[in-house]
Amino acid sequence: MQREITTINTTAFDQYESNVRSYCRSFPTVFRQAQGSLLYNEQQRAYIDFFAGAGALNYGHNNPQIKQALLDYLESDQIIHGLDMYTSAKRSFLERFNQVILAPRNLPYKVQFCGPTGANAVEAALKLARKVTGRTSVISFMGGYHGLSLGGLAVTGNAEHRAAAGVPLAHTNFLPYPRGPLAAIDSLHYLETVLTDTHSGFDKPAAIILETIQAEGGIYVAPTEWLQGLRHLCDRHGIVLICDDIQVGCGRTGSFFSFEAAGIVPDLVTLSKSISGYGLPMALVLIKAEYDQWQPAEHTGTFRGNQLAFVGATAALDYWQTDAFSSSIQALAQQLESFLQTQIVPLDPRLAIRGKGLVWGIDFAELGPTASKTIMQECFAQGLIIERVGRGDSVLKIMPPLTIDSALLAQGCAILQQAIQTYLASTKE
Amino acid sequence: MQREITTINTTAFDQYESNVRSYCRSFPTVFRQAQGSLLYNEQQRAYIDFFAGAGALNYGHNNPQIKQALLDYLESDQIIHGLDMYTSAKRSFLERFNQVILAPRNLPYKVQFCGPTGANAVEAALKLARKVTGRTSVISFMGGYHGLSLGGLAVTGNAEHRAAAGVPLAHTNFLPYPRGPLAAIDSLHYLETVLTDTHSGFDKPAAIILETIQAEGGIYVAPTEWLQGLRHLCDRHGIVLICDDIQVGCGRTGSFFSFEAAGIVPDLVTLSKSISGYGLPMALVLIKAEYDQWQPAEHTGTFRGNQLAFVGATAALDYWQTDAFSSSIQALAQQLESFLQTQIVPLDPRLAIRGKGLVWGIDFAELGPTASKTIMQECFAQGLIIERVGRGDSVLKIMPPLTIDSALLAQGCAILQQAIQTYLASTKE
Amino acid sequence: MQREITTINTTAFDQYESNVRSYCRSFPTVFRQAQGSLLYNEQQRAYIDFFAGAGALNYGHNNPQIKQALLDYLESDQIIHGLDMYTSAKRSFLERFNQVILAPRNLPYKVQFCGPTGANAVEAALKLARKVTGRTSVISFMGGYHGLSLGGLAVTGNAEHRAAAGVPLAHTNFLPYPRGPLAAIDSLHYLETVLTDTHSGFDKPAAIILETIQAEGGIYVAPTEWLQGLRHLCDRHGIVLICDDIQVGCGRTGSFFSFEAAGIVPDLVTLSKSISGYGLPMALVLIKAEYDQWQPAEHTGTFRGNQLAFVGATAALDYWQTDAFSSSIQALAQQLESFLQTQIVPLDPRLAIRGKGLVWGIDFAELGPTASKTIMQECFAQGLIIERVGRGDSVLKIMPPLTIDSALLAQGCAILQQAIQTYLASTKE
Amino acid sequence: MQREITTINTTAFDQYESNVRSYCRSFPTVFRQAQGSLLYNEQQRAYIDFFAGAGALNYGHNNPQIKQALLDYLESDQIIHGLDMYTSAKRSFLERFNQVILAPRNLPYKVQFCGPTGANAVEAALKLARKVTGRTSVISFMGGYHGLSLGGLAVTGNAEHRAAAGVPLAHTNFLPYPRGPLAAIDSLHYLETVLTDTHSGFDKPAAIILETIQAEGGIYVAPTEWLQGLRHLCDRHGIVLICDDIQVGCGRTGSFFSFEAAGIVPDLVTLSKSISGYGLPMALVLIKAEYDQWQPAEHTGTFRGNQLAFVGATAALDYWQTDAFSSSIQALAQQLESFLQTQIVPLDPRLAIRGKGLVWGIDFAELGPTASKTIMQECFAQGLIIERVGRGDSVLKIMPPLTIDSALLAQGCAILQQAIQTYLASTKE
Repeated sequence: MQREITTINTTAFDQYESNVRSYCRSFPTVFRQAQGSLLYNEQQRAYIDFFAGAGALNYGHNNPQIKQALLDYLESDQIIHGLDMYTSAKRSFLERFNQVILAPRNLPYKVQFCGPTGANAVEAALKLARKVTGRTSVISFMGGYHGLSLGGLAVTGNAEHRAAAGVPLAHTNFLPYPRGPLAAIDSLHYLETVLTDTHSGFDKPAAIILETIQAEGGIYVAPTEWLQGLRHLCDRHGIVLICDDIQVGCGRTGSFFSFEAAGIVPDLVTLSKSISGYGLPMALVLIKAEYDQWQPAEHTGTFRGNQLAFVGATAALDYWQTDAFSSSIQALAQQLESFLQTQIVPLDPRLAIRGKGLVWGIDFAELGPTASKTIMQECFAQGLIIERVGRGDSVLKIMPPLTIDSALLAQGCAILQQAIQTYLASTKE
Repeated sequence: MQREITTINTTAFDQYESNVRSYCRSFPTVFRQAQGSLLYNEQQRAYIDFFAGAGALNYGHNNPQIKQALLDYLESDQIIHGLDMYTSAKRSFLERFNQVILAPRNLPYKVQFCGPTGANAVEAALKLARKVTGRTSVISFMGGYHGLSLGGLAVTGNAEHRAAAGVPLAHTNFLPYPRGPLAAIDSLHYLETVLTDTHSGFDKPAAIILETIQAEGGIYVAPTEWLQGLRHLCDRHGIVLICDDIQVGCGRTGSFFSFEAAGIVPDLVTLSKSISGYGLPMALVLIKAEYDQWQPAEHTGTFRGNQLAFVGATAALDYWQTDAFSSSIQALAQQLESFLQTQIVPLDPRLAIRGKGLVWGIDFAELGPTASKTIMQECFAQGLIIERVGRGDSVLKIMPPLTIDSALLAQGCAILQQAIQTYLASTKE
Repeated sequence: MQREITTINTTAFDQYESNVRSYCRSFPTVFRQAQGSLLYNEQQRAYIDFFAGAGALNYGHNNPQIKQALLDYLESDQIIHGLDMYTSAKRSFLERFNQVILAPRNLPYKVQFCGPTGANAVEAALKLARKVTGRTSVISFMGGYHGLSLGGLAVTGNAEHRAAAGVPLAHTNFLPYPRGPLAAIDSLHYLETVLTDTHSGFDKPAAIILETIQAEGGIYVAPTEWLQGLRHLCDRHGIVLICDDIQVGCGRTGSFFSFEAAGIVPDLVTLSKSISGYGLPMALVLIKAEYDQWQPAEHTGTFRGNQLAFVGATAALDYWQTDAFSSSIQALAQQLESFLQTQIVPLDPRLAIRGKGLVWGIDFAELGPTASKTIMQECFAQGLIIERVGRGDSVLKIMPPLTIDSALLAQGCAILQQAIQTYLASTKE
Repeated sequence: MQREITTINTTAFDQYESNVRSYCRSFPTVFRQAQGSLLYNEQQRAYIDFFAGAGALNYGHNNPQIKQALLDYLESDQIIHGLDMYTSAKRSFLERFNQVILAPRNLPYKVQFCGPTGANAVEAALKLARKVTGRTSVISFMGGYHGLSLGGLAVTGNAEHRAAAGVPLAHTNFLPYPRGPLAAIDSLHYLETVLTDTHSGFDKPAAIILETIQAEGGIYVAPTEWLQGLRHLCDRHGIVLICDDIQVGCGRTGSFFSFEAAGIVPDLVTLSKSISGYGLPMALVLIKAEYDQWQPAEHTGTFRGNQLAFVGATAALDYWQTDAFSSSIQALAQQLESFLQTQIVPLDPRLAIRGKGLVWGIDFAELGPTASKTIMQECFAQGLIIERVGRGDSVLKIMPPLTIDSALLAQGCAILQQAIQTYLASTKE
């Protein structure tokens, strides 16, 4: 095994960049190019990407179909920065998004273009839910991740992130998420009880915000019936249901939205990460028409009109014109799940796997605090990029681009399997 | 005068976009292309741009020097989405930024790449100031604008924006800004008093955040001595001084940073808007090395590695290699100020002008609540895009790209002058 | 049955007193005198007191042993209002409290004399816990009641009281209380999980505040093992355990402190209500010596030296010199419990009883929303004062003075039994 | 000069009482008895009282007229603890208060009996103002003191007290108080500006809370025209005006309410301290009838029916049946002011005096940080009790009982004068 770490040049980063940088510590090389599901460093070494830009690269790196649209747009000096003025690019996106995504699914959403980060979409959604209901409190779930600006951070469970707020985070109650650390508790019953118990101390919330799959939280998948129950509960109590589909939307679970399988319609949906198709900053809030009670300019942001991202987003919607893409994701999902069930689970009884579609986690918590990191590092050494998430970062998250081909997926899986085996062997010595 | 409003097609926006949209209501046409200081609608009508993407387009639309770098980067399939991994594009920016901007000015900053919105940079800066000092409270200034996520909104003065928070905004005390509504008050003395008065109710703040020129607040320019006094005050009291240079940095005042003229060094600086050079989403926090106390990943965000923006930003730094750009800005500034002093001020004694460099305001407050809007609409009808800011939106903000040529600047000014004259004439009938 | 309601004169109250008044609506007569466990209205009608001033009259009304001490003190012009100056009366109390209560129980407490309300003791205890730990968050229990000033209200579960705050109540997480609405949940396990789960969103708390018996919450008695488990949990995590013994301390459960039976020692204890022995305003915080980290005057209040109350409190401590009082309470408790078990429970399968010592509740929730009120009104008509508490006010709380004699207790019980029977009969018609 | 400090016995306090105690450190002796304006320690030494229980003893210690009413009440076993039930004692107070105080002044107030501390009255008033207006923010004044429970503490300026909150104090903006540290600022103009400036960051407040004389803040007297201007401002903006008359009401300024001289009618008034006439815990909120929008029991408290205090309060109202008491206060006030002007002011140009009625301060700030303490200690040694207040505790507050006789007032003044002279002499050596 050849490691090229000694040859990489990180001087500029060491000297000029803030200590806050993090992924570069896990993947210590300097990347230059990328294509599909492969990243290349400055020495042209290829890395298989099981990380997909934390979910921002569902269509792969530099997807050629989208790339051409971007080049054409740039070349022809079309508007790049548009705030929320009317532009041709925005119109194309709106029409296409309605035609390919919303209309076929009977989803009654208006589109808010907010600041181009997931956190900003969450901020906008929470503001709107509070405005519409006149209430301040929100319910979130343990393990939930919704961004690190103050509004999003207040509904994010991670203690380290919360501690960095520098102010107490208020107006949120956290409840157990299904299948997580307090899985034995029927959280819907718990929720119904605290909402109806006049002495529970839970102020009636404006909104319940959730991910249908907690990704950063460690890959916990909410059951269909639970999602349906939550939808009914919100209906009964007049609570705005916000689905944060930033990481697991845009096809990650096989359908465009992650909540489609449950047959529910959230009141607000936040989208970001892969919505632009090309890794460009973009974020949306989808708003049921009756909740679109914004006054003009109540929520703004300089980059809410990132036209290049709109162009990418419009091109990416071509993937959803037919069922082919969805079918292909499901086939890959089956390959991945089968690999995990047959090749990984048998390796050690302490291993747990969880996931759906093309987002899966292998939980190494029971193998001790360093297992996941050691294995991640070995994967990287062998040319596979894979991230750690969840409590104690004990979970390796397998999240390749949805466009990965079957062979490359298998190749990455093989590296992963080998790394786990190496680790397990080393602990038995 | 020919108005083409009847021919524009806004159906898609009316049907699919949220009511929150705003600029499109001021400038009701559909834009398609842009070049330098001109925007073009779908009917190829040209508009002179005195708006510059709210400060995001200091180098003009689709600046050809930068454009080529972007095209080359895209063409060669270099990394687009990099989180905070090491990339060649980020290294180039860091080295170039240090070489052209920081080193020559002896500025001891580390660079934090945060989520690519100004609001996110403000959130990061406030977090860090609180972390470093262990205090929660912050002082901001009346008229200040620092973004609309909860952390930034708490230090933003605008009542309409604040009301949309849906929760009480806490941990901030507001003080009068120089030359603003309470200009008669010596705000430094006020500040010194409340900080030393043990009964003032002002909890000792972590930070003071300010713009050196309040742009959204109505174009108020802080005097040099005031900025120096504020710097000394922060030194005496161990308060982190945050300069939000998002709108008036990147050359807007003639120098790269707006605070250079005052000879002060803020502890933290937020940059965004024009930093990418091309209107692409990007934001930075500059951090004095001793304050770079972030733990890895304490503040993150999916799009904090928008490589295309880094490429644009690096190319844009070419403008700052010599003094030529700065000199050219100053020449244009002189032309603009002279125009205002000689052509506008004499028109009516109720008009007030304020500004510096290439950001100026004409305040129509004393002409009644509808003057600025009527004049803005007339400008638009005549092919000039100009924004209203400040209390009651009474101020027309003149903020063209810094690359505008003298003739076009004059042409825009002429439209503006004509529109004002038309308005004044109409009110005398 | 003769009802004298028509003859009472409430004009002054109707005209001059705020609408906020409440108990007078349940007990619509004008009281003038009282003795032991009897109250007398202006028409000299006697009422048996199963209410005991909401727990402030454990030693009965105008207890003659205490009364003489008060008269002597007043007569001799001793200090009435002393703030926190040294006074003879305070010294007597401190010495006596140590001798009779603290020393025999090996309780290592310092005594803080705070403002003479239970709410103020809670405010002081929460402040101190936050100061000592440097943390802001607190854990409280659903159904908990800790007073209505903002600090206490934040840890009080009652939604109507919370809604009256006028500001969002922050810094508190509520957990299920044993045997309450979410009794099936092992709240200790829940608590341990959220404290150790790094993604639970539960910021590490300064304190856990609880009542060992939730009185206002509907008479829920915490099991001994649960209290012990909670104590261990607080030890493990360095959390300050605050026992709010305002309502069920001072002998209500048979021992002076309610927590004695569990063999635990809270870090802070709040006392008020019956501590003065005579219904006079007084409140204390007991503080483990190592937590007595107050600076002088950090928490003050004009009436924290209500000397007359100290005199009453000192005299009342005579009750605790021997075990006789405790034994007598236990005998009465047995009588009461036996009555409930044999005379009330059999009346209807929908009735639930809960309690300990001389605080018991009969829960009429399953008999519909008006049952408890109708029965309370009938009791009042028949000369028995009894309060409603808990969710929907469905619980009649039996809480006579601890000095009630057996016959009077029986007489009150008979009225209660009759009223319930009358109600049940009426619903069967 | 004989000092008896060595003989006092404070063992019990040292051993058993919390470190939070404070006044005992200024006045280190053990008090036993009191009469009128004299306190007696356990060695029967007399002390002249220029402190008056921090304002709770306006009618002197153990006022004989009131004492007899209390003894009679106690003797006859009338109700002591009544919560908010109807009682004969409460009716007497309500009728008498209306007859003697409210009706003659045309004051349209309803009376709320809240928990018997000033802080609780403030909490209730703030809650009600927020409920009535639906707003959360409040404006208070620098130097203001409104109690130390979280709601009151948030509107209290003292930094040491605020720091002890343990949580950030929110929802309050502080403005300069007339004649205080930022006296040059026209605070009414400032207030009007921030309320009308849409970018001031001052969220529209529910209430403005103030003392007409800041006592704890250092004896600053609000000018009449300022109070009138504030009243008009509140009317214009629909803001609830709360006058906290806890320390300077009940005759301290010559009239029953301190605001009478200005001819204004606050919307809510808080009273406590001297309202019971005898130093017993009692507090009231006076509420303009249209603002009495409380639901029953929305704000409660165990000791809101401290009947003995009601009896004292009713008896104390005899003082207000004629103008004699007011005239006598004014005569004493003239004597005191004359003494200060003629005997104290000439002693040293650095001395400042401020005050009104029988509350005056001598400010020693310019004599250095230890002057006031040294002089206070010397006064105590010579038999005079006088408190320090204000910034740096630099102000000696002269606040004797209103019933003090002229000779004793002169005697106390002579001790004070002598102590100041001694100090001044010592600093010249």
